[in-house]
Amino acid sequence: MPGLFITFEGGEGAGKSTQVGLLEAHLRAGGHDVVRTREPGGTPGAEALRDFLLFGGHDLSLRAEILAHFAARCDHVDRLIRPALARGAVVICDRFADSTMAYQGYGTGQGDPATIGLIEVLTGQVGLTPDLTLVLTLKRARALQRLHARGGRADRYEAADEAFHARVAEGFAAIAEARPGRCVCLAADRPAEAIAEEVARLVDARLTGAA
Amino acid sequence: MPGLFITFEGGEGAGKSTQVGLLEAHLRAGGHDVVRTREPGGTPGAEALRDFLLFGGHDLSLRAEILAHFAARCDHVDRLIRPALARGAVVICDRFADSTMAYQGYGTGQGDPATIGLIEVLTGQVGLTPDLTLVLTLKRARALQRLHARGGRADRYEAADEAFHARVAEGFAAIAEARPGRCVCLAADRPAEAIAEEVARLVDARLTGAA
Repeated sequence: MPGLFITFEGGEGAGKSTQVGLLEAHLRAGGHDVVRTREPGGTPGAEALRDFLLFGGHDLSLRAEILAHFAARCDHVDRLIRPALARGAVVICDRFADSTMAYQGYGTGQGDPATIGLIEVLTGQVGLTPDLTLVLTLKRARALQRLHARGGRADRYEAADEAFHARVAEGFAAIAEARPGRCVCLAADRPAEAIAEEVARLVDARLTGAA
Repeated sequence: MPGLFITFEGGEGAGKSTQVGLLEAHLRAGGHDVVRTREPGGTPGAEALRDFLLFGGHDLSLRAEILAHFAARCDHVDRLIRPALARGAVVICDRFADSTMAYQGYGTGQGDPATIGLIEVLTGQVGLTPDLTLVLTLKRARALQRLHARGGRADRYEAADEAFHARVAEGFAAIAEARPGRCVCLAADRPAEAIAEEVARLVDARLTGAA
Protein backbone atom coordinates (compact mmCIF):
# COMPACT_ATOMS: atom_id res chain seq x y z
CA MET A 1 0.00 0.00 0.00
CA PRO A 2 1.43 3.39 -0.92
CA GLY A 3 1.60 5.99 1.86
CA LEU A 4 -0.48 9.14 2.09
CA PHE A 5 0.93 12.59 2.80
CA ILE A 6 -1.50 14.97 4.53
CA THR A 7 -0.66 18.54 5.51
CA PHE A 8 -2.52 21.04 7.67
CA GLU A 9 -2.13 24.73 6.89
CA GLY A 10 -3.48 28.02 8.20
CA GLY A 11 -2.64 30.91 10.50
CA GLU A 12 -1.67 30.63 14.16
CA GLY A 13 -4.58 29.85 16.48
CA ALA A 14 -6.67 28.16 13.76
CA GLY A 15 -6.52 24.84 15.60
CA LYS A 16 -4.08 22.91 13.42
CA SER A 17 -2.42 21.02 16.28
CA THR A 18 -5.78 19.95 17.67
CA GLN A 19 -6.90 18.65 14.28
CA VAL A 20 -3.58 16.90 13.68
CA GLY A 21 -4.04 15.09 17.01
CA LEU A 22 -7.66 14.14 16.32
CA LEU A 23 -6.81 12.83 12.85
CA GLU A 24 -3.88 10.88 14.24
CA ALA A 25 -6.20 9.22 16.81
CA HIS A 26 -8.80 8.46 14.13
CA LEU A 27 -6.24 6.81 11.86
CA ARG A 28 -4.56 4.86 14.66
CA ALA A 29 -7.98 3.56 15.70
CA GLY A 30 -8.33 2.33 12.12
CA GLY A 31 -5.06 0.41 12.39
CA HIS A 32 -2.95 2.71 10.21
CA ASP A 33 0.78 3.30 10.54
CA VAL A 34 0.75 7.05 11.31
CA VAL A 35 3.66 9.49 11.46
CA ARG A 36 2.75 12.83 13.03
CA THR A 37 5.21 15.64 12.44
CA ARG A 38 5.50 19.40 11.96
CA GLU A 39 7.39 22.15 10.15
CA PRO A 40 9.70 23.83 10.48
CA GLY A 41 11.27 20.85 12.19
CA GLY A 42 10.42 17.17 12.38
CA THR A 43 14.00 15.84 12.40
CA PRO A 44 16.90 16.76 14.71
CA GLY A 45 18.63 18.86 12.03
CA ALA A 46 15.41 20.57 10.98
CA GLU A 47 14.45 21.27 14.60
CA ALA A 48 17.87 22.90 15.08
CA LEU A 49 17.19 25.05 12.01
CA ARG A 50 13.70 25.82 13.43
CA ASP A 51 15.31 27.19 16.60
CA PHE A 52 17.81 29.13 14.47
CA LEU A 53 15.01 30.66 12.35
CA LEU A 54 12.23 31.26 14.87
CA PHE A 55 14.06 31.96 18.10
CA GLY A 56 17.73 32.61 17.18
CA GLY A 57 17.33 36.35 16.78
CA HIS A 58 19.32 36.21 13.52
CA ASP A 59 18.42 38.79 10.92
CA LEU A 60 18.56 37.10 7.50
CA SER A 61 17.65 38.56 4.13
CA LEU A 62 14.26 37.28 2.94
CA ARG A 63 15.87 35.05 0.29
CA ALA A 64 18.20 33.58 2.90
CA GLU A 65 15.29 32.96 5.28
CA ILE A 66 13.38 31.16 2.51
CA LEU A 67 16.40 29.00 1.63
CA ALA A 68 16.95 28.11 5.30
CA HIS A 69 13.29 27.04 5.60
CA PHE A 70 13.76 24.80 2.56
CA ALA A 71 16.99 23.43 4.05
CA ALA A 72 14.96 22.31 7.09
CA ARG A 73 12.24 20.97 4.76
CA CYS A 74 14.69 18.90 2.71
CA ASP A 75 16.14 17.29 5.83
CA HIS A 76 12.60 16.52 7.00
CA VAL A 77 11.56 15.06 3.64
CA ASP A 78 14.79 13.10 3.10
CA ARG A 79 15.11 11.69 6.61
CA LEU A 80 11.52 11.27 7.86
CA ILE A 81 8.69 11.85 5.38
CA ARG A 82 9.91 9.96 2.30
CA PRO A 83 11.01 6.87 4.27
CA ALA A 84 7.66 6.81 6.09
CA LEU A 85 5.68 7.11 2.85
CA ALA A 86 7.85 4.41 1.27
CA ARG A 87 6.83 1.92 3.95
CA GLY A 88 3.16 2.84 3.47
CA ALA A 89 2.59 5.14 6.44
CA VAL A 90 0.14 8.02 6.60
CA VAL A 91 2.21 11.15 7.32
CA ILE A 92 0.34 14.03 8.97
CA CYS A 93 2.36 17.24 8.90
CA ASP A 94 1.52 20.49 10.72
CA ARG A 95 2.59 23.02 8.01
CA PHE A 96 4.64 22.37 4.86
CA ALA A 97 5.72 24.34 1.76
CA ASP A 98 2.42 26.26 1.54
CA SER A 99 3.35 27.96 4.82
CA THR A 100 6.59 29.27 3.29
CA MET A 101 4.58 30.61 0.37
CA ALA A 102 1.99 32.23 2.66
CA TYR A 103 4.36 33.64 5.32
CA GLN A 104 7.50 34.50 3.34
CA GLY A 105 5.99 34.87 -0.15
CA TYR A 106 2.75 36.74 0.64
CA GLY A 107 3.45 37.96 4.20
CA THR A 108 7.04 39.22 4.35
CA GLY A 109 7.54 39.31 0.56
CA GLN A 110 4.19 41.03 -0.09
CA GLY A 111 3.68 38.90 -3.20
CA ASP A 112 6.85 40.12 -4.95
CA PRO A 113 7.08 37.97 -8.13
CA ALA A 114 10.80 37.20 -7.69
CA THR A 115 10.16 35.92 -4.16
CA ILE A 116 7.14 33.86 -5.26
CA GLY A 117 9.26 32.48 -8.11
CA LEU A 118 12.11 31.47 -5.79
CA ILE A 119 9.67 29.61 -3.52
CA GLU A 120 8.14 27.84 -6.53
CA VAL A 121 11.58 26.76 -7.78
CA LEU A 122 12.56 25.45 -4.34
CA THR A 123 9.21 23.68 -3.90
CA GLY A 124 9.88 21.92 -7.20
CA GLN A 125 13.36 20.91 -6.02
CA VAL A 126 11.92 19.33 -2.85
CA GLY A 127 10.04 17.05 -5.22
CA LEU A 128 7.26 15.99 -2.84
CA THR A 129 3.69 17.33 -2.98
CA PRO A 130 1.06 16.53 -0.32
CA ASP A 131 -1.78 14.24 -1.39
CA LEU A 132 -4.21 16.33 0.63
CA THR A 133 -3.86 19.74 2.28
CA LEU A 134 -6.42 20.91 4.84
CA VAL A 135 -6.42 24.69 5.16
CA LEU A 136 -8.03 25.85 8.41
CA THR A 137 -9.49 29.32 7.99
CA LEU A 138 -10.33 31.56 10.92
CA LYS A 139 -10.86 35.30 11.29
CA ARG A 140 -7.78 36.88 12.87
CA ALA A 141 -9.76 38.37 15.80
CA ARG A 142 -10.92 34.89 16.81
CA ALA A 143 -7.43 33.42 16.31
CA LEU A 144 -5.97 36.11 18.58
CA GLN A 145 -8.50 35.24 21.31
CA ARG A 146 -7.34 31.64 21.15
CA LEU A 147 -3.66 32.59 21.13
CA HIS A 148 -4.12 34.82 24.18
CA ALA A 149 -6.02 32.08 26.00
CA ARG A 150 -3.23 29.62 25.16
CA GLY A 151 -0.41 31.80 26.54
CA GLY A 152 3.20 30.63 26.14
CA ARG A 153 6.01 32.32 24.27
CA ALA A 154 5.12 34.15 21.08
CA ASP A 155 7.30 33.35 18.07
CA ARG A 156 8.18 35.98 15.51
CA TYR A 157 5.05 35.37 13.43
CA GLU A 158 2.60 35.59 16.32
CA ALA A 159 4.16 38.94 17.18
CA ALA A 160 3.96 40.38 13.64
CA ASP A 161 1.59 43.19 12.71
CA GLU A 162 -1.99 42.70 11.56
CA ALA A 163 -1.36 43.74 7.94
CA PHE A 164 1.18 40.93 7.75
CA HIS A 165 -1.36 38.38 9.02
CA ALA A 166 -3.96 39.65 6.55
CA ARG A 167 -1.49 39.03 3.69
CA VAL A 168 -0.74 35.54 5.03
CA ALA A 169 -4.46 34.74 5.07
CA GLU A 170 -4.79 36.03 1.49
CA GLY A 171 -1.83 33.82 0.59
CA PHE A 172 -3.41 30.67 1.96
CA ALA A 173 -6.67 31.50 0.15
CA ALA A 174 -4.82 32.04 -3.15
CA ILE A 175 -2.84 28.81 -2.78
CA ALA A 176 -6.00 26.80 -2.05
CA GLU A 177 -7.92 28.39 -4.90
CA ALA A 178 -5.14 27.58 -7.38
CA ARG A 179 -4.90 23.92 -6.25
CA PRO A 180 -8.49 22.70 -5.79
CA GLY A 181 -7.50 19.04 -6.30
CA ARG A 182 -5.11 19.06 -3.36
CA CYS A 183 -6.37 21.76 -0.98
CA VAL A 184 -9.61 21.89 0.99
CA CYS A 185 -10.44 24.99 3.05
CA LEU A 186 -12.24 24.28 6.33
CA ALA A 187 -13.96 26.97 8.41
CA ALA A 188 -12.25 26.67 11.81
CA ASP A 189 -14.78 28.67 13.85
CA ARG A 190 -16.66 25.49 14.77
CA PRO A 191 -16.31 22.85 17.50
CA ALA A 192 -13.11 20.85 16.97
CA GLU A 193 -15.10 17.60 16.76
CA ALA A 194 -17.20 18.88 13.86
CA ILE A 195 -14.07 19.86 11.93
CA ALA A 196 -12.43 16.54 12.79
CA GLU A 197 -15.39 14.61 11.37
CA GLU A 198 -15.08 16.48 8.08
CA VAL A 199 -11.32 15.89 8.04
CA ALA A 200 -11.80 12.17 8.75
CA ARG A 201 -14.27 11.85 5.87
CA LEU A 202 -11.87 13.55 3.46
CA VAL A 203 -8.90 11.44 4.56
CA ASP A 204 -10.85 8.16 4.58
CA ALA A 205 -11.98 8.90 1.04
CA ARG A 206 -8.34 9.37 -0.06
CA LEU A 207 -7.30 6.18 1.71
CA THR A 208 -9.96 4.16 -0.06
CA GLY A 209 -9.13 5.86 -3.35
CA ALA A 210 -12.61 7.41 -3.64
CA ALA A 211 -11.43 11.01 -3.78
CA MET B 1 32.71 52.68 -12.32
CA PRO B 2 31.08 49.26 -11.98
CA GLY B 3 32.40 46.99 -9.25
CA LEU B 4 34.43 43.84 -9.72
CA PHE B 5 33.68 40.53 -8.00
CA ILE B 6 36.74 38.30 -7.49
CA THR B 7 36.63 34.91 -5.81
CA PHE B 8 39.42 32.61 -4.63
CA GLU B 9 38.79 28.88 -4.66
CA GLY B 10 40.73 25.71 -3.87
CA GLY B 11 41.27 23.15 -1.14
CA GLU B 12 42.31 23.88 2.44
CA GLY B 13 45.96 24.84 2.83
CA ALA B 14 46.32 26.12 -0.74
CA GLY B 15 47.03 29.64 0.50
CA LYS B 16 43.76 31.38 -0.32
CA SER B 17 43.73 33.64 2.75
CA THR B 18 47.30 34.76 2.09
CA GLN B 19 46.47 35.63 -1.52
CA VAL B 20 43.26 37.39 -0.53
CA GLY B 21 45.30 39.57 1.85
CA LEU B 22 48.03 40.31 -0.70
CA LEU B 23 45.47 41.23 -3.38
CA GLU B 24 43.61 43.43 -0.91
CA ALA B 25 46.85 45.30 -0.11
CA HIS B 26 47.69 45.66 -3.81
CA LEU B 27 44.27 47.12 -4.63
CA ARG B 28 44.19 49.43 -1.62
CA ALA B 29 47.63 50.74 -2.64
CA GLY B 30 46.04 51.52 -6.01
CA GLY B 31 43.32 53.56 -4.33
CA HIS B 32 40.47 51.10 -4.83
CA ASP B 33 37.45 50.66 -2.58
CA VAL B 34 38.00 47.05 -1.50
CA VAL B 35 35.67 44.72 0.40
CA ARG B 36 37.35 41.56 1.67
CA THR B 37 35.03 38.78 2.74
CA ARG B 38 34.66 34.99 2.94
CA GLU B 39 32.20 32.11 2.67
CA PRO B 40 30.44 30.55 4.33
CA GLY B 41 29.89 33.78 6.24
CA GLY B 42 30.58 37.42 5.53
CA THR B 43 27.47 38.84 7.24
CA PRO B 44 26.18 38.30 10.79
CA GLY B 45 23.41 35.95 9.63
CA ALA B 46 25.69 34.03 7.28
CA GLU B 47 28.38 33.72 9.97
CA ALA B 48 25.75 32.27 12.32
CA LEU B 49 24.84 29.76 9.60
CA ARG B 50 28.57 29.05 9.12
CA ASP B 51 28.85 28.10 12.80
CA PHE B 52 25.69 26.02 12.49
CA LEU B 53 27.05 24.18 9.44
CA LEU B 54 30.75 23.78 10.22
CA PHE B 55 30.86 23.52 13.99
CA GLY B 56 27.27 22.88 15.17
CA GLY B 57 27.51 19.10 15.07
CA HIS B 58 24.13 18.94 13.28
CA ASP B 59 23.66 16.05 10.91
CA LEU B 60 21.73 17.34 7.87
CA SER B 61 20.86 15.45 4.71
CA LEU B 62 23.11 16.47 1.81
CA ARG B 63 20.29 18.43 0.12
CA ALA B 64 19.59 20.26 3.37
CA GLU B 65 23.28 21.06 3.82
CA ILE B 66 23.45 22.47 0.28
CA LEU B 67 20.34 24.61 0.82
CA ALA B 68 21.71 25.94 4.12
CA HIS B 69 24.97 26.92 2.39
CA PHE B 70 22.95 28.80 -0.23
CA ALA B 71 20.88 30.44 2.53
CA ALA B 72 24.13 31.85 3.94
CA ARG B 73 25.25 32.81 0.41
CA CYS B 74 22.02 34.70 -0.32
CA ASP B 75 22.32 36.71 2.89
CA HIS B 76 25.93 37.51 1.99
CA VAL B 77 25.06 38.52 -1.58
CA ASP B 78 21.95 40.50 -0.61
CA ARG B 79 23.42 42.33 2.37
CA LEU B 80 27.12 42.78 1.55
CA ILE B 81 28.31 41.82 -1.94
CA ARG B 82 25.63 43.39 -4.15
CA PRO B 83 25.57 46.71 -2.27
CA ALA B 84 29.39 46.87 -2.44
CA LEU B 85 29.45 46.14 -6.19
CA ALA B 86 26.68 48.68 -6.73
CA ARG B 87 28.84 51.43 -5.25
CA GLY B 88 31.77 50.36 -7.45
CA ALA B 89 33.87 48.41 -4.94
CA VAL B 90 36.15 45.49 -5.71
CA VAL B 91 34.86 42.55 -3.67
CA ILE B 92 37.39 39.81 -2.89
CA CYS B 93 35.72 36.68 -1.53
CA ASP B 94 37.47 33.64 -0.03
CA ARG B 95 35.26 30.85 -1.49
CA PHE B 96 31.87 31.19 -3.22
CA ALA B 97 29.43 28.90 -5.06
CA ASP B 98 32.22 26.88 -6.71
CA SER B 99 33.14 25.60 -3.26
CA THR B 100 29.63 24.22 -2.74
CA MET B 101 29.90 22.48 -6.11
CA ALA B 102 33.36 21.07 -5.29
CA TYR B 103 32.72 20.05 -1.65
CA GLN B 104 29.05 19.06 -1.63
CA GLY B 105 28.58 18.23 -5.33
CA TYR B 106 31.82 16.38 -6.09
CA GLY B 107 33.06 15.61 -2.56
CA THR B 108 30.11 14.48 -0.44
CA GLY B 109 27.76 13.95 -3.39
CA GLN B 110 30.36 12.08 -5.47
CA GLY B 111 29.14 13.80 -8.63
CA ASP B 112 25.56 12.49 -8.35
CA PRO B 113 23.66 14.25 -11.19
CA ALA B 114 20.65 15.19 -9.01
CA THR B 115 22.98 16.85 -6.49
CA ILE B 116 24.93 18.67 -9.20
CA GLY B 117 21.60 19.76 -10.71
CA LEU B 118 20.32 21.14 -7.39
CA ILE B 119 23.51 23.18 -6.93
CA GLU B 120 23.23 24.53 -10.49
CA VAL B 121 19.60 25.57 -9.92
CA LEU B 122 20.48 27.30 -6.64
CA THR B 123 23.52 29.00 -8.18
CA GLY B 124 21.20 30.37 -10.87
CA GLN B 125 18.79 31.63 -8.21
CA VAL B 126 21.58 33.53 -6.42
CA GLY B 127 21.92 35.46 -9.66
CA LEU B 128 25.48 36.70 -9.19
CA THR B 129 28.51 35.24 -10.96
CA PRO B 130 32.10 36.27 -10.14
CA ASP B 131 33.93 38.33 -12.76
CA LEU B 132 37.13 36.41 -12.04
CA THR B 133 37.77 33.23 -10.06
CA LEU B 134 41.30 32.30 -9.05
CA VAL B 135 41.59 28.58 -8.32
CA LEU B 136 44.68 27.76 -6.27
CA THR B 137 45.84 24.22 -6.96
CA LEU B 138 48.13 22.31 -4.63
CA LYS B 139 48.89 18.64 -4.15
CA ARG B 140 47.10 17.35 -1.05
CA ALA B 141 50.34 16.14 0.59
CA ARG B 142 51.76 19.68 0.46
CA ALA B 143 48.45 21.19 1.65
CA LEU B 144 48.43 18.82 4.65
CA GLN B 145 51.98 19.92 5.58
CA ARG B 146 50.77 23.53 5.60
CA LEU B 147 47.63 22.70 7.60
CA HIS B 148 49.67 20.83 10.20
CA ALA B 149 52.15 23.68 10.46
CA ARG B 150 49.23 26.12 10.88
CA GLY B 151 47.58 24.19 13.74
CA GLY B 152 44.26 25.41 15.12
CA ARG B 153 40.92 23.60 15.15
CA ALA B 154 40.13 21.39 12.18
CA ASP B 155 36.68 21.92 10.67
CA ARG B 156 34.72 19.01 9.23
CA TYR B 157 36.32 19.32 5.79
CA GLU B 158 39.90 19.38 7.01
CA ALA B 159 39.15 16.19 8.95
CA ALA B 160 37.55 14.33 6.02
CA ASP B 161 39.20 11.35 4.34
CA GLU B 162 41.67 11.60 1.47
CA ALA B 163 39.32 10.15 -1.17
CA PHE B 164 36.94 13.02 -0.36
CA HIS B 165 39.68 15.61 -0.87
CA ALA B 166 40.69 13.98 -4.16
CA ARG B 167 37.10 14.33 -5.41
CA VAL B 168 37.02 17.98 -4.28
CA ALA B 169 40.22 18.66 -6.25
CA GLU B 170 38.71 16.94 -9.31
CA GLY B 171 35.63 19.11 -8.83
CA PHE B 172 37.59 22.37 -8.83
CA ALA B 173 39.48 21.22 -11.93
CA ALA B 174 36.24 20.35 -13.73
CA ILE B 175 34.60 23.68 -12.78
CA ALA B 176 37.63 25.67 -14.01
CA GLU B 177 37.88 23.68 -17.24
CA ALA B 178 34.20 24.27 -18.03
CA ARG B 179 34.45 28.04 -17.37
CA PRO B 180 37.73 29.21 -18.95
CA GLY B 181 36.50 32.80 -19.32
CA ARG B 182 35.93 33.20 -15.58
CA CYS B 183 38.33 30.76 -13.90
CA VAL B 184 42.13 30.76 -13.85
CA CYS B 185 44.01 27.90 -12.16
CA LEU B 186 47.20 28.94 -10.38
CA ALA B 187 49.82 26.46 -9.16
CA ALA B 188 50.06 27.21 -5.43
CA ASP B 189 53.36 25.38 -4.77
CA ARG B 190 55.32 28.60 -5.30
CA PRO B 191 56.33 31.54 -3.12
CA ALA B 192 53.25 33.55 -2.16
CA GLU B 193 54.75 36.70 -3.72
CA ALA B 194 55.10 35.02 -7.12
CA ILE B 195 51.47 33.92 -7.05
CA ALA B 196 50.38 37.37 -5.86
CA GLU B 197 52.15 39.02 -8.81
CA GLU B 198 50.27 36.81 -11.24
CA VAL B 199 46.99 37.50 -9.42
CA ALA B 200 47.64 41.26 -9.48
CA ARG B 201 48.30 41.17 -13.24
CA LEU B 202 45.05 39.27 -13.87
CA VAL B 203 43.00 41.59 -11.66
CA ASP B 204 44.57 44.78 -13.00
CA ALA B 205 43.76 43.60 -16.51
CA ARG B 206 40.10 43.13 -15.55
CA LEU B 207 40.00 46.54 -13.87
CA THR B 208 41.31 48.27 -16.97
CA GLY B 209 38.98 46.23 -19.18
CA ALA B 210 41.88 44.55 -21.01
CA ALA B 211 40.84 40.99 -20.14
